Parts: sequence; C-alpha cells; structure tokens
Amino acid sequence: MGGDFAPDQSCLGIQRFLEADQFPDAQIVAYGTCAHLESLQKTYSPNRLEIIPTTDHVEMDEHPTKVYKEKPGSAFALGFSDLSQSKIDSFISAGNTGAMLVGATMIVKPINGVSRPTIPTIVPCVNGKTGLLLDVGINADCKPENLEQFAILGSNYAEHVQKVANPRVALLNIGEEEGKGNLLAKAAYELLKMNPHINFVGNIEGRDLFLHKADVIVCDGYTGNIVLKLAESIYHVFGEMCGIEDEYIRRFNHSQYGGTPVLGINKSVIVAHGISNAIAFEQMLGLAYEIAKSDLPSTLQGKFATA
Amino acid sequence: MGGDFAPDQSCLGIQRFLEADQFPDAQIVAYGTCAHLESLQKTYSPNRLEIIPTTDHVEMDEHPTKVYKEKPGSAFALGFSDLSQSKIDSFISAGNTGAMLVGATMIVKPINGVSRPTIPTIVPCVNGKTGLLLDVGINADCKPENLEQFAILGSNYAEHVQKVANPRVALLNIGEEEGKGNLLAKAAYELLKMNPHINFVGNIEGRDLFLHKADVIVCDGYTGNIVLKLAESIYHVFGEMCGIEDEYIRRFNHSQYGGTPVLGINKSVIVAHGISNAIAFEQMLGLAYEIAKSDLPSTLQGKFATA
Repeated sequence: MGGDFAPDQSCLGIQRFLEADQFPDAQIVAYGTCAHLESLQKTYSPNRLEIIPTTDHVEMDEHPTKVYKEKPGSAFALGFSDLSQSKIDSFISAGNTGAMLVGATMIVKPINGVSRPTIPTIVPCVNGKTGLLLDVGINADCKPENLEQFAILGSNYAEHVQKVANPRVALLNIGEEEGKGNLLAKAAYELLKMNPHINFVGNIEGRDLFLHKADVIVCDGYTGNIVLKLAESIYHVFGEMCGIEDEYIRRFNHSQYGGTPVLGINKSVIVAHGISNAIAFEQMLGLAYEIAKSDLPSTLQGKFATA
Repeated sequence: MGGDFAPDQSCLGIQRFLEADQFPDAQIVAYGTCAHLESLQKTYSPNRLEIIPTTDHVEMDEHPTKVYKEKPGSAFALGFSDLSQSKIDSFISAGNTGAMLVGATMIVKPINGVSRPTIPTIVPCVNGKTGLLLDVGINADCKPENLEQFAILGSNYAEHVQKVANPRVALLNIGEEEGKGNLLAKAAYELLKMNPHINFVGNIEGRDLFLHKADVIVCDGYTGNIVLKLAESIYHVFGEMCGIEDEYIRRFNHSQYGGTPVLGINKSVIVAHGISNAIAFEQMLGLAYEIAKSDLPSTLQGKFATA
C-alpha cells in the first residue's frame, strides 16, 4: 500500500512477477487490500499469493518511530512482525522510508558486530555491468571503521547475491594514489588495505564511477547520497529534458530500478523508491527472492561473528 | 610551456585570442620560447604580445615547493614574480598544478581574513546557463566557516566576473530541508543562513546540480572534487564512449573549458587543466582579462577587510 502509485503499480508488479513465473517456488505475501489483488487470487493459489489485509494506513510524512505503536494494523507493523518471526523471508515497501529504516534497525536489528547498517545503490556502468556504491545516505557522518564495514557488507552482497567472484572493492576518493583524500578517506584507506576479507583495489575518482573499475565502492553517506542523486538525475536531465534516446542513459531511469536492500541487519529488507513503477516492483520481488535464496543475512552473521 | 600539449596548444590559443581581437587592450606576456610564438611576434607588436624566455623547465611531477628555489628561470618563478610586482594582472598555466597552488598561496598569498583560498568549477546547466561549484579539491577537510567564506568568494565571483545580479547561493546537501546533512553541512547551513552578504537559498541535492537552482553551490573540497570529476566524465562517457551527439553533452568537454581561477588570493591566478587545448587557452585568456577588468581581488580585499 506504499509508494506514490500505490496500490496500482505495486499490484501490477506482483501480477507481472507471477505471470513471468521466473521463480516458481516464490510465495508472495501482500499486506493490503485492493480489487486488483483479489482478482489475482482467483488465478493464483495461496502458496503463490497470500493476502493479509491491513487496517491502518501510514502516510509518507508520518513520524517513523510512532508507526509501530500507533498503527499496529499497518503493512509496516504486520510485515516487520512476520519478518522477525521468520514467517516471511524478505520485506519490501515503497512507503514511508523512515518507517522502513526504523523497522529494519529497531525491529529486525543490526547483525552483532555491525555498528551501522547501510544502504547501497546500483551504479550502471558503460560496459553493461554495474557497480555497487555504499553508503548512499543513512550514515551522513562516518568513521573509518564504518567504511571498512560497508566494504565487507558490500563485498558479500556482490559475491552472494550479484554472483560476482572475488569482488573488487574501491574507496571513492579525490586521487588515485594512497595518501590522497580527506582525513576520513585517508584513515579508511589504511583499514581497507589491511583487511584480509576484502579484495581492495585502492582509490577510484568521480570520473571512474561509470567505468566499472570496481564492483563495490565505499564512501560516507553524505558523499554517496550526493553521487547517487546526481547519477539518478542523468536519466531525467539527458533522457527526459534533452530528449536523448540512448540505451545506456535509459539504464539510469531509477523508476524502473526499484529498491535497495538494507545491508547489515538480521533479515532481508528492501527499501523502495516512492516513484517505483510496476517494473520496479517486479524487479524488487526478484531481488528479494535472490537475497532470501542466497541467505545473505546468515552469511554476514557468520562473518561478523568470527571477525 | 606547461600542459600535456605544450607549447603547441598554448601558443595556438594565444594566436586564436589575438586573431579574435575581442579584447583589443589586452596584452599577453608569454613565458617561454617556441618558433610559433616568435612567428606571431612578427605580426603583433610587443604591447599585444611580449615574450619572456624561460631558462628552466618544470615537469608535471616535480615537487611543487622546490620549484621556486631550484628553478628561478622557470615560467612559474618568473610569472609569479611579475604578478606579485603587478607587472602582469593575471597568471595562467596548465603546468604542474601543485606549483601553481604554491605560487598562489605562498607568493601571491591569501587575502587578509580568508583562511582558505578555493578553486571553483563551472557546472553546465541544462537551461544553457552555468552554476559555480566550490571548493572542488584544494580543501579536502573543511570547517563550517570555510564553507561560509567559499560562499562569499563564489558570490562575488559570480557577481563581478560572471555578471550575475544577486547570485543565489546554495549548500550542496542530502536533503532540501533545513536540518538535513552531515555535521559539517548542518553547521554551515546555520552560518550561511545568518550571513547578510550572500543571497542564501538553502540546500540543493545532487539531482539539482544541472538544473540551475543556484548560481553558486558550496561544499567541502572532497565532495566537490568527486562531483567535479563525475560531471567532467559525462562528456567522456556519454559523448566519446557512447557516441551520443548532443550539444549539452558537448558542454561537459572540459578540454575546451580550460581553467579555474584561485579565489581568495591577492591576485588573479588561473589554474588550467593539463589537457587544455587551444580553445581552452583562448577562453582562459579571455577569463583572465575579465577578472583583471573586474578587479575582483581588490573587491574581495575590501569585503574581507570590513567583515
């Protein structure tokens, strides 16, 4: 029931996901009620599509921490409750982002040893592949140790979900050589260089972002969010405003990307863009399935338990 | 004699500037020697083109601080000496950037009251206009007060050199509302909001960079340098690699932009990209003329003396 185009686009996304049938053992649990969903249930059995009606609705601007106490019948409260009890394996919403993050960090909780859960974004690269940039906004101020943990979280996501072998991890910086950067980047470089659990390839600069010089790129959330939004604007500015028809520019259309996982928590949670369309919801359902299949949270629990 | 294509492109730039004759009272003083310059001097009188031969050459990777002691016959040593004695009004080089910054800050020196000179970049906007982003790399770690000074320096540059009336100043941030950002941005917002000498219009996000929501955009040099290089890569990635023919994308071709002034010092100094071509040198000569005519350094000396 969340997002700018709910429930039309989210329900249409569910329909597309079921019709594509790429993941026949995936069961969708939809929190909410709408005629579209009910008509879908005539076609699909409950072990493919289960509907859990909601009795409360959370607006986009509601105070995130109050949602769980004051709206127990909302999709947020019901979904995070089911997720923490392992009744579902992954939870997606395009609704109130603050409420999603509160659910992810206060109900699902960070993995033991992870000081800051993080949100990555997919960066479309000119060679057709993608990079993973993190953090992109939930950790505006970071310590070097945070960037080191982002590197481990991103590296495991790239390896286990994106199936990148031995992912190359880079630090976003203002020069290629060691010793460049602000105080944070210089200190983070030292930690990344010494960490035996990642394949650190050094610094990359802003000009390298689209060139696939690394599979995972770490930075603080202030920088990452500015870079994310700048990259996201490429489709709007060059595709929509300038009217350039180009396949690569279309790959920056984030309304079709959908959402991003929260990394470093005990379950799979995907925070969707408010503007997500049906294609985005379909892709996020596939992503949720892949994360659940890879069992990334358990893998990360193991890594941080031994670290 | 500096830059990746010296002296061919710099000399050709001088020739283009003289032939265009847009600034008939501009006198060029060229530090260096080459056959091209000598042939130009047959056409132009010394009050349009004066050649000062150099006896030392500075490589791109030489240690910047040693240049002035060990290479007194270099263009750097001769040029900054003439500049500080007001024999010339502006100094441009595409050579060793470190040596340029040492000359700007150690020989020309910061304006009294300016704690950190800064370098801006021009951001091409989709509406055909430009924004001014600063700092873009010489101040990787900043305090809130530095960003406030960048705002004053950029605002005066926009007003007096770019002829923008009442330039709108914004803070690059991760949300539009007051209170968003990292610790630096939050504190800088408070200073910018209270400063009576600038027209502060609030935060802008990464997605707004090309939309001309502000004339001057301030941030720390780490963030600014990453954004600068990302923006610069747009021509390389979309224009050259993807082969997109588009006028707006061509505006990101920084080999034609040339250089950037150092703001907050007592004289006009323009640091050029190493890859500058003849068009870039021609444009920088025009820019140097405009800065000299506007007498920006004196204006800034007055503003910081009374502040």
